[in-house]
Amino acid sequence: MSNFLRPQYQNLKPYTPGEQINADYIKLNTNESPFPPSPRVGEVLRSGIEERLQLYSDPTLGELHRAVAAKFGLTEDYVMAANGSDDVLAFAIMAYAGGGGTVVCPDITYGFYPVYTNLFGAKLVTHPLCEDFSVNADDYFNAPGTVVIANPNAPTGIALPLSEIERIIAANRDNIVIIDEAYMPFHGDSCIPLLVKYENLLVTMTMSKSHSLAGLRVGFAVANPHIIADLNRIRYSFNPYNLNAISIKAAAAAIADDEYYDGCIAEINRTREWVTSELVQLGFVCTPSVANFIFAAHPAIDGGELYRKLKERIILVRHLDTPRTRGHVRISIGTMGQMVRLITEIRSILEDKNA
Amino acid sequence: MSNFLRPQYQNLKPYTPGEQINADYIKLNTNESPFPPSPRVGEVLRSGIEERLQLYSDPTLGELHRAVAAKFGLTEDYVMAANGSDDVLAFAIMAYAGGGGTVVCPDITYGFYPVYTNLFGAKLVTHPLCEDFSVNADDYFNAPGTVVIANPNAPTGIALPLSEIERIIAANRDNIVIIDEAYMPFHGDSCIPLLVKYENLLVTMTMSKSHSLAGLRVGFAVANPHIIADLNRIRYSFNPYNLNAISIKAAAAAIADDEYYDGCIAEINRTREWVTSELVQLGFVCTPSVANFIFAAHPAIDGGELYRKLKERIILVRHLDTPRTRGHVRISIGTMGQMVRLITEIRSILEDKNA
Repeated sequence: MSNFLRPQYQNLKPYTPGEQINADYIKLNTNESPFPPSPRVGEVLRSGIEERLQLYSDPTLGELHRAVAAKFGLTEDYVMAANGSDDVLAFAIMAYAGGGGTVVCPDITYGFYPVYTNLFGAKLVTHPLCEDFSVNADDYFNAPGTVVIANPNAPTGIALPLSEIERIIAANRDNIVIIDEAYMPFHGDSCIPLLVKYENLLVTMTMSKSHSLAGLRVGFAVANPHIIADLNRIRYSFNPYNLNAISIKAAAAAIADDEYYDGCIAEINRTREWVTSELVQLGFVCTPSVANFIFAAHPAIDGGELYRKLKERIILVRHLDTPRTRGHVRISIGTMGQMVRLITEIRSILEDKNA
Repeated sequence: MSNFLRPQYQNLKPYTPGEQINADYIKLNTNESPFPPSPRVGEVLRSGIEERLQLYSDPTLGELHRAVAAKFGLTEDYVMAANGSDDVLAFAIMAYAGGGGTVVCPDITYGFYPVYTNLFGAKLVTHPLCEDFSVNADDYFNAPGTVVIANPNAPTGIALPLSEIERIIAANRDNIVIIDEAYMPFHGDSCIPLLVKYENLLVTMTMSKSHSLAGLRVGFAVANPHIIADLNRIRYSFNPYNLNAISIKAAAAAIADDEYYDGCIAEINRTREWVTSELVQLGFVCTPSVANFIFAAHPAIDGGELYRKLKERIILVRHLDTPRTRGHVRISIGTMGQMVRLITEIRSILEDKNA
């Protein structure tokens, strides 16, 4: 840090990304898909697109916006894409809470919400999750600012029913309610249909998880056009060319390939159910996750110890060292072969402890 | 705009990108290169990179940082890459002037500096360019905040000698001085060698102009490691995965291909000299541009009128409608064939006016 940095940033606690290790680990720590993206992505890369890369990408992002809008039966003015849903969340928290506003979210959720709150000079209000790690909708009624709920939530994988999400939105007519649907496709229950009833709803999505495109950096907001206009005002004041020409075209091609991704998602969900039942047989307690990861704790081994022992065995999972989560590990769903190996190693670790 | 938008953003004036028209215009309005990128970019796209796009890109950006550092004979900790140099400038202005600081820049320069100043709640102090559109270094001594100078400047193309740049840096030991070298490669005089002497220097660069990669969105900061640490603190609090896996690898491959780009740059500079001499013969006054564009005015035709008449003839140039620039047009350097066509059309427009 230099002496020039403005004082408000000197105590910033940046987000800590999951370990990105370039070795032969079985990587179950950042909720990536174990499957490559739709073959249509490779077709875009081999289409000669580099011959026009000297030209700026389209700042209106029209091609991608139309593809996203078509998927959800909306018009293009309901969509704004960005460089990952992190950019969308950053723009949204800046727009609706920046410089003295308030962000309201659960105490255990995606770790970036407090980081943005801090970065943009907003106040943070958190509500503890219930004992069973579920969100209590009533906590968010008449909130003192912008509400952010991940649904399904991370790292728990638990989804609130849409009726509960609607109660939160309805009880915050004067606040923006951001529903982060990063993991929604594994579950299928998007709150996008609520947009016709609520002006204050902002849905964020990503192609990083369900669409096997974490490396392409594409996310988007879906909201009523006046909200999208706000986000574009920030986007055009920050980086109008926020998506490169390849990501625009490849993401538009991928999002239209429902057949491919429906197959991937079904396979991931089947694998999650299998792993969960295996873990339960081994004595784990798992939250009822509907996402592409499991949040699991075992009475005989601390989450940090399990994380370390799995790492020794070349398997990476995520351990979040906070009071309520440190007993748990979060395990992304890989291929069936990877998960068989995971269960074998966990069984062996537990046997070693008992020996 | 919605009623939810925080008051400080309600009067934001976003940046206006140059027109991006998908038709058969000769596009000389956004300072893109007329040449495609290095063939090494296409090789990356055809390397099967999509087979790993389900994984997050490397947040350390190591491969790209090493390539940039190697080019300038520095170590990796002197470099931070981002999603276009706009992202670098945004992070830098936020870090060093955000929330009540001050940005000091010329009145006529890259239009994004005032936008960032406004977005991040800083004050703007501008100094008029001299009568000949050059920057007067003395205006920036003991500045009241972060100094931002594009060198060469846009839309004028005029470069300050390094000795003058050094005087500004030396006279601002308590301020960050950002030198935006977007157009430096056409000129060759980078101030990077001054980094050994000055802790307060921050150089920004882009691959959009000289490296024919506007569509890939890659820019970077080069500065002493404590400054890079500040920028990374903001980056990891905003979007740690700010560059996608394809842009990282393609940019790293391109930046190592000096042979290809040296040829492109030499050709662009030759063409600029030819166009300038043609324009002068037609009665234009041109600033002494060392960049990949020309800033030209003619006593018989207003810049706006020339812009419109060229657009009717399917040639796009840029007109900036401010008091001191509205007599001029800014013309990007295209291929020799495109510029021959430009001169023919301008000659015809001037003849029509005289008829």
